[in-house]
This record gives sequence, C-alpha cells and structure tokens, in this order.
Amino acid sequence: MKISGRNKLQATIKEIVKGGVVSKIVMDYKGDELVAVITNDSVDDLELKVGDNVTALVKATEMMVLK
Amino acid sequence: MKISGRNKLQATIKEIVKGGVVSKIVMDYKGDELVAVITNDSVDDLELKVGDNVTALVKATEMMVLK
Amino acid sequence: MKISGRNKLQATIKEIVKGGVVSKIVMDYKGDELVAVITNDSVDDLELKVGDNVTALVKATEMMVLK
Amino acid sequence: MKISGRNKLQATIKEIVKGGVVSKIVMDYKGDELVAVITNDSVDDLELKVGDNVTALVKATEMMVLK
Amino acid sequence: MKISGRNKLQATIKEIVKGGVVSKIVMDYKGDELVAVITNDSVDDLELKVGDNVTALVKATEMMVLK
Amino acid sequence: MKISGRNKLQATIKEIVKGGVVSKIVMDYKGDELVAVITNDSVDDLELKVGDNVTALVKATEMMVLK
Repeated sequence: MKISGRNKLQATIKEIVKGGVVSKIVMDYKGDELVAVITNDSVDDLELKVGDNVTALVKATEMMVLK
Repeated sequence: MKISGRNKLQATIKEIVKGGVVSKIVMDYKGDELVAVITNDSVDDLELKVGDNVTALVKATEMMVLK
Repeated sequence: MKISGRNKLQATIKEIVKGGVVSKIVMDYKGDELVAVITNDSVDDLELKVGDNVTALVKATEMMVLK
Repeated sequence: MKISGRNKLQATIKEIVKGGVVSKIVMDYKGDELVAVITNDSVDDLELKVGDNVTALVKATEMMVLK
Repeated sequence: MKISGRNKLQATIKEIVKGGVVSKIVMDYKGDELVAVITNDSVDDLELKVGDNVTALVKATEMMVLK
Repeated sequence: MKISGRNKLQATIKEIVKGGVVSKIVMDYKGDELVAVITNDSVDDLELKVGDNVTALVKATEMMVLK
C-alpha cells in the first residue's frame, strides 16, 4: 500500500501522554523531536508504546516554510 | 518570537516548482525528503530559492503516526 | 501497517484533473462524491487512474460537523 | 449558504466523548464509522447528541489517498 | 445550520486568481488581508466574485499562536 | 524571520483553558473572537497568559469560504 502523503519520517516513540480524548506522541527523529497529537483510540488501535519504531506522516499541504 | 507549532525541522531547499497558484518546495532534512505546498506569494515574499536554509513547520495536530 | 488517521473511506476514482503542482482526485464513495487535492507527484507515485479502488484518509482533527 | 469544503457526508451521531477541551464525535455513514475531534464549545453550541443527523465536512486539501 | 468550526470571519473578496486546480481568494477582513486556497470547483459552485461578502472559516485545531 | 503562512492576525488572549494534552486559547481580534487549540507544551513554552498580545497564524490551504 502506498500513501499520497509526501512526508514520511522514520522515528522512535519517546513519550506518550494520554488526555481525555487525544494523546501526545513525542518521537525522536535523528536527534530532533517530533510531536503528534492523535486520538486515544489510535494509540490503542496501533498499540503504541515507548520505544516503538513508527513513521510520522504529514501531507505536503500541511507544512509551512520559515526563513 | 516563538511559534506554538511543535515540529520545526531545519532543512535545505532542493527544488522549487511553481504552479498557477501554489508551489512545491522540496527540501532535504537530514537525508530525507520533505515536500511542502505553499502559495506562490509565499515563495516570492520569503524570496525562496534552491540552497536556502529554511525551517519546515508542522502543527502537532496535523501529524499522523503509522506502525 | 496501521495508520492513526481514523477516517478510512473505500472509494473508486472517477476523475483526475492535473494542475501545475497539485491534482484533483474525484472519487465515488457509496454514491457520494469525495474530492481530494494531492500533489502531482503522488498521482504518479501511486499510479492513480480512473477506476482505481482507493482509500480516502482523513485525520479526525480535520473533520468538522454541521447541524 | 454554500461552503467551499468539497466533502460533505450525511451521518448520524453514535457516540460523544468529552475531554477537557475537545470531544470525540463518532458517526455512522452508511455502515462506516466516521470520527471527528471538535471543541467542547462546538458540541455545546450545536447541542450535539447521540442520534442527531449531521453533516461531516472535510476540505479537499485535508484528504489523502491510499492505494 | 450551525458549523463546529470556531473561527468565522466576515470578509470581502478583493481578488481571485485561478490556477489549474485551485484558486487563491484574497479577502479584506477589518483592514487585514486573508488568503484562502480552495478548489476551482468551489469558486464556480459558490459563484465567487470580487466584492462578495463571505465568511472565512477556520477550525480551531488549524490555528497556531505566535508570541 | 518570515513565515509562509499567509494569514496573520494580531490578537489579544482573553481566556486559556487547559485540558489533558491540548489547551483552548480564546483571543480577541478587533471585537471578533478567535479560538485556537494548541498543545499544553506550547502554552508553557510561549508562557501564554491572558492579556498577551499574540499573532494567530493560519495556512491559506486550511481556510474555507462560505457564501
């Protein structure tokens, strides 16, 4: 299966913080920190846990550029 | 100035393709490729060109996780 | 592979319109029409064509509700 | 009133889970499940409740395609 | 009909630029400029033209804060 | 530093509500109300508090138009 989303970064989960409906997933990507907010349902469905190797996915239209 | 967006990725512009209204910005980020679609106006306003050191910005709520 | 994005809609491509940088993908989803705007690169990478069975993916935080 | 957002799906609310700031709205669309995360304020403002007929709205630029 | 999206900004269209698939809509909002990128189909469907009074709609999860 | 995001509105924070992972930031912009949902980490990192002068930032591809 291929995904149209252009940005796919291999990362490792460092921390998971669950809220009432959404969770914060903190990941390490080559020394940088990535943060995703996803539903608690997704955390359960993917059985996410600290140390997991995952892919962070971002659609090209969601990315801004700063200079 | 600080930005609430959690994901700030230091990257280098490899390619810019202008369309009628939006442009594709291809960047190198630690050996991986990032792609942002932004308005042509932003390309002009930031005077973006190949070789520029920029920051790709993504809000945590826009990032998915795959496993 | 599992994806955190909660909305995965099995659809069939009805029309593809390419622009300078992004393309419009019109799909049939159980009799309703879905429209996605993705990069031309994704259309090429996934070799999308009319008649393809695909999955439209939407993150829960990107969906609004009207009543 | 018309909305530029291209994806409008008639659905029925199956479940509402309130968190501290945002709520999860689970909907049924022709047997498929849709999930939206919206503010608690919106749940109150629209007086959303289980059984309501609503429309799920998604902008075309927010939809990915998988194949 | 009510919309869950929290940010509804009454604006006036100043300029419309059509590209191959998407259009740029420039609006005046209380003296500030707003820019939306929407599909050409939406421009046609809403019969948007310069001078129109419209509402710009943004979901709360799509808004960042700078300080 | 310049940002590709086209919509930048000078606003004042009226209310901050913290949830488990994300916070609601209510702002006043020339008498209108703006609402952003950002991570609690961002609230802490930017040291946001009621009365702060901030800039609300929205990417052009995230804005819909109603008429």
